[in-house]
Amino acid sequence: MKVLLLGYGNVGKAFVELLRENQLNVKVVGAFKRGGLVAPLGGEEKAVEIEKGLEQLSPDVLVDVSSPNYVNGEPSVSAYLEAFKRGIHVITANKAPLALKFGEILDEARKRKASLGFQATVMSGVPSVNLRRVLPALKVYELRGILNGTTNYILSKMHDGLSFDQALKEAQEQGFAEPDPTLDVNGFDSAAKLTILANVYFGCRKSIKDVRFSGIEHIDFSEVGRWRNEGLKPKLVAKASRSELRVSVEALTRNDPLYHVDGVTNGLLIRTDIQDIFISGPGAGPKRAAYGILSDLLIISSGQSIEF
Amino acid sequence: MKVLLLGYGNVGKAFVELLRENQLNVKVVGAFKRGGLVAPLGGEEKAVEIEKGLEQLSPDVLVDVSSPNYVNGEPSVSAYLEAFKRGIHVITANKAPLALKFGEILDEARKRKASLGFQATVMSGVPSVNLRRVLPALKVYELRGILNGTTNYILSKMHDGLSFDQALKEAQEQGFAEPDPTLDVNGFDSAAKLTILANVYFGCRKSIKDVRFSGIEHIDFSEVGRWRNEGLKPKLVAKASRSELRVSVEALTRNDPLYHVDGVTNGLLIRTDIQDIFISGPGAGPKRAAYGILSDLLIISSGQSIEF
Repeated sequence: MKVLLLGYGNVGKAFVELLRENQLNVKVVGAFKRGGLVAPLGGEEKAVEIEKGLEQLSPDVLVDVSSPNYVNGEPSVSAYLEAFKRGIHVITANKAPLALKFGEILDEARKRKASLGFQATVMSGVPSVNLRRVLPALKVYELRGILNGTTNYILSKMHDGLSFDQALKEAQEQGFAEPDPTLDVNGFDSAAKLTILANVYFGCRKSIKDVRFSGIEHIDFSEVGRWRNEGLKPKLVAKASRSELRVSVEALTRNDPLYHVDGVTNGLLIRTDIQDIFISGPGAGPKRAAYGILSDLLIISSGQSIEF
Repeated sequence: MKVLLLGYGNVGKAFVELLRENQLNVKVVGAFKRGGLVAPLGGEEKAVEIEKGLEQLSPDVLVDVSSPNYVNGEPSVSAYLEAFKRGIHVITANKAPLALKFGEILDEARKRKASLGFQATVMSGVPSVNLRRVLPALKVYELRGILNGTTNYILSKMHDGLSFDQALKEAQEQGFAEPDPTLDVNGFDSAAKLTILANVYFGCRKSIKDVRFSGIEHIDFSEVGRWRNEGLKPKLVAKASRSELRVSVEALTRNDPLYHVDGVTNGLLIRTDIQDIFISGPGAGPKRAAYGILSDLLIISSGQSIEF
C-alpha cells in the first residue's frame, strides 16, 4: 500500500517510525511540505502542486499530518477533495478541515466510495471516533468529554492549589502546553473535537461555529478553592446533545466518571438508550497520534465500510 | 438476513425485541429450546436435531443465547461446528464454549471463512471484545478488569460497612445476584471472561483451566475495614499477561482506574506499548447482552473481517 503524507512534522515522523517498527507492507512515497513535494522522503523539495503530486505518485491513501488552519481548512480540504476524486482514501490527524467542513468532506468521500479516517483528531490513539464503529445502531443522547489535556492538566494543578499562571508555567515546562496555549486555554481545541464527535455520534453536520465555548482563563483561584472545600473539581467539559454543543468549566462531583480524569488524560462518556459507556486514556503525543492514524489505516485496508 | 436462535430465555427475548425496535431487515426463523426446535417462534416444539434444523432453515447466523455448560460446552460447541461447516456465522452470548474451547472454535470458523462474534460474553454491550477491532496491531502487555457485577456490588457494599452476608442478600434483593451465586462469588465467572479477553488481546489459545482464580467468599469483614481506613478498596481483579491469568481480590489505591468502578459496573484497563486505555460501563442485563449480540450482527453483516 502506498501512502502520501501532507505535512511532515513530529506526528508524520512518528508515523513513519511506527510503520517501520511494525514491519507493515506500507510504503510512504513522499510528503508535501510547505516548500513543495519531497519524494522520496529525504530527497529535495520540488515545487509540485498537490493535484499533480497525487497524479504522479498515485498513492492509495493521503495522510494529513499538517498543522490546523482554522480560517478555511486549506490546503487540506482541497487536497482531500482531489484525493477522493481519484478514489484515494484520506486519513487525517488534522482537526481543522473536519471542524469546519465535516459534511462537505464526508459527502464527497461517500460519493467517490473512498474512506475517511480521523481517529487521531480526537483523543489521539484512544478510540473515540472509532469506538462508534463497534457501537452500531446505538441511540446516543449525550456526549460529555474532557478532550483537551493542557487545560485538564492546568485545572488539576489548580485543584491542588496552584494559581492559573503557576499551573500554566508548569504545563509548559513539562511540554504539556504550547508556548502559545491560546487555542487550548480558551476552549477552542475542545470545541473543534466536540464538533467532530457530535457529527460522528449524532450523524449530524455541525461545524465549530455551532459550538458555544468558553475556556479556563478566567477561572478564579478562590472559586477553585471553594469548590475543593465542597468536594468539587473543576473540569473543562465538552458536552453535546442533538440540540446543543457546548464547552465550559463545570464543578464536578465525585460520582461523575469525568471527575477522576486527571492531568493530561482525556475521557469521554457516551450516554445512550441502552447503556452509558466511558472510555479514557492519554489524549496527546506524536506517537499516540501516529497510532491513531495507523489504526485507521489498518481498519480501512481490511475493507471495513465507513460507519459514520 | 435469517437468524436462528440456540436457546430462548431472557436474552433471546430481549434480542428479538431489540430487532423489532430497530426495524432491521433481520428475520428470526426459529429457536432451539430444551424440548426441541420452535420454528416459527411461538409455534410448537418439535423434536429436531440441531444439524437438521440448520439444514432445513438455512439461517445466515446462529445466535447462541443458551445457558452456559461448563462441563463440555455442549450442545453449543457441536452446534457452532455444524454451523461453520455450512458457512453459517455464529454469534454467542454464552461464555462456556469459548472459555473451554476457544482455539478449536475459532480455528474452525476461520477454516470455513465464517465469522464468530462474542462481544456479549464479556461486559455485555460495552465494547471489550470488540474494542480490539479498533485497536489493531497494538502490543498489549497487560489486561486488568473488574468483569463481574455481582461480586463488585457485594465488595462495594462491604467497603461501605456491610458484612458479606448482608451485601449478598441486598444484591439478591436488587436482582444483581442469582439465587445460587456460586459461580459469581467464587471467581469462576470472572475467570471465564478473562480467558476470552486474553485470547482476543494476546492472540493465544488459553482455556479457563489456565486461570488461577479465587473469589470473595473468604474476604474478612475486619480486613475490609482496615483497608478502608488506609484508603484502599477491595476489588475482584481479573488480570492477564502473556504468561499468567489470575483472578483474586486486591486492595486498590485511589489512583488505580479500577478503584472508581463501583457497584454493578464493569471496567477494563488495557495496558499497551503506546498507551493505557480504560473502558467501563454496565456489564449485565438482558437488553445490554442483546445489544452486544446486535452489535456483532451489524459488524459481521457489514462485511468486516475477523480481527482476532
